[in-house]
Amino acid sequence: MSRLIDLTYVLSPETPLYPIYDPVQVADKFTFADDGFAVRSWAFDEHSGTHVDAPAHFGGEATVDVIAVDDLLLEAVVLDIGQRVAADHDAMVVPDDVLAWESAHGPLPERCALLARTCWGARAADPDAYLNADAGGVLHSPGFHPDVGSFLAEERPGVRAVGLDTASLDIGPSTEFPFHVAWLPTGRYGIENLARLEELPPRGATLFVGAPRLQAGSGGPSRIFALV
Amino acid sequence: MSRLIDLTYVLSPETPLYPIYDPVQVADKFTFADDGFAVRSWAFDEHSGTHVDAPAHFGGEATVDVIAVDDLLLEAVVLDIGQRVAADHDAMVVPDDVLAWESAHGPLPERCALLARTCWGARAADPDAYLNADAGGVLHSPGFHPDVGSFLAEERPGVRAVGLDTASLDIGPSTEFPFHVAWLPTGRYGIENLARLEELPPRGATLFVGAPRLQAGSGGPSRIFALV
Repeated sequence: MSRLIDLTYVLSPETPLYPIYDPVQVADKFTFADDGFAVRSWAFDEHSGTHVDAPAHFGGEATVDVIAVDDLLLEAVVLDIGQRVAADHDAMVVPDDVLAWESAHGPLPERCALLARTCWGARAADPDAYLNADAGGVLHSPGFHPDVGSFLAEERPGVRAVGLDTASLDIGPSTEFPFHVAWLPTGRYGIENLARLEELPPRGATLFVGAPRLQAGSGGPSRIFALV
Repeated sequence: MSRLIDLTYVLSPETPLYPIYDPVQVADKFTFADDGFAVRSWAFDEHSGTHVDAPAHFGGEATVDVIAVDDLLLEAVVLDIGQRVAADHDAMVVPDDVLAWESAHGPLPERCALLARTCWGARAADPDAYLNADAGGVLHSPGFHPDVGSFLAEERPGVRAVGLDTASLDIGPSTEFPFHVAWLPTGRYGIENLARLEELPPRGATLFVGAPRLQAGSGGPSRIFALV
């Protein structure tokens, strides 16, 4: 019996954001009590909550509205670096992690999304712990090493997307975003702030990425499920 | 070989809206040329573009963020009332249309989304033709008869959602929204402004409804696909 797992956090003004973005805003426009029907109005930056980074976020061609639809339904491959993250908050997914996954589970599927489970999701209920700034304001959280971007794009081109359970594809202290730079311009996309990666098997889940069709957008809040 | 069909329109300031809503707004927040990465900021009312009406839009319990995830992956059943719409812009889906579908294709699936193809999507590129206001400002477009709401909720409870290719579940001239009132409070949801319903078979497509998890939202722009 297959089961749908919702990998999406609720979006609200309390959603923890990478610090260059403004808080999500919401207001009632119509209310059931006054108007007989309810509608709210929202304002947010594209990279809020569980969201897609389109290639165009870092100069790639595709904006979020024109990512190939076939790239939005993919088998999910899940790497686990939680143990390393426990010892080093700035731990990175490296090419050897992909090779180790293949040793254990066989070659990557012909087309897939590669997701990194860093176990950072355990902090999601506490925005301060999730962003994890030190006394000097430097964030500390795990991410992808830029080498894994070039490795996947060149050696494993069937990986159409990567994602993880933190607020950035790059590690917290990064200021130059080298993984974003290595990955997004190749025409592939990223997913940040994924929930419940603990519930996914290493392979075999089908990932549905409901990226919004925001015209010429660099990304956007997305509804993302896995069918396991 | 299965194929994904994108049933979602691009969202932009030009998106035609039901006239009680404000235009979608977007602005550049960061640009690749100036900042090395691109981000836009958006503001919109929940019922913009291809979107879900959550039960709470008309007083039902579930807001869009808590619609049961199992109701977001459903077999799609497609009724075609295009011929009637050609003769009457305010034509309605009635219970007999459901019975006629069953006569042709067998009982409705145990769980499904019932979609009405009115062929209104042919007008989508022209907002005036899509909303189709007459000289007095009254809109004319097809929709669901309220009787089909109570019929489905009572006699075909496995229908978890209905949708169509116009801007409202109710017909254009409606001011009391009787279908919304009959349907949404039963805990089921609706989908408006679906694209490309012409490409779906009468049964057998799998519908993915990427409803946004807007906290306590009455609905929201959604990424919706069919796998056929």
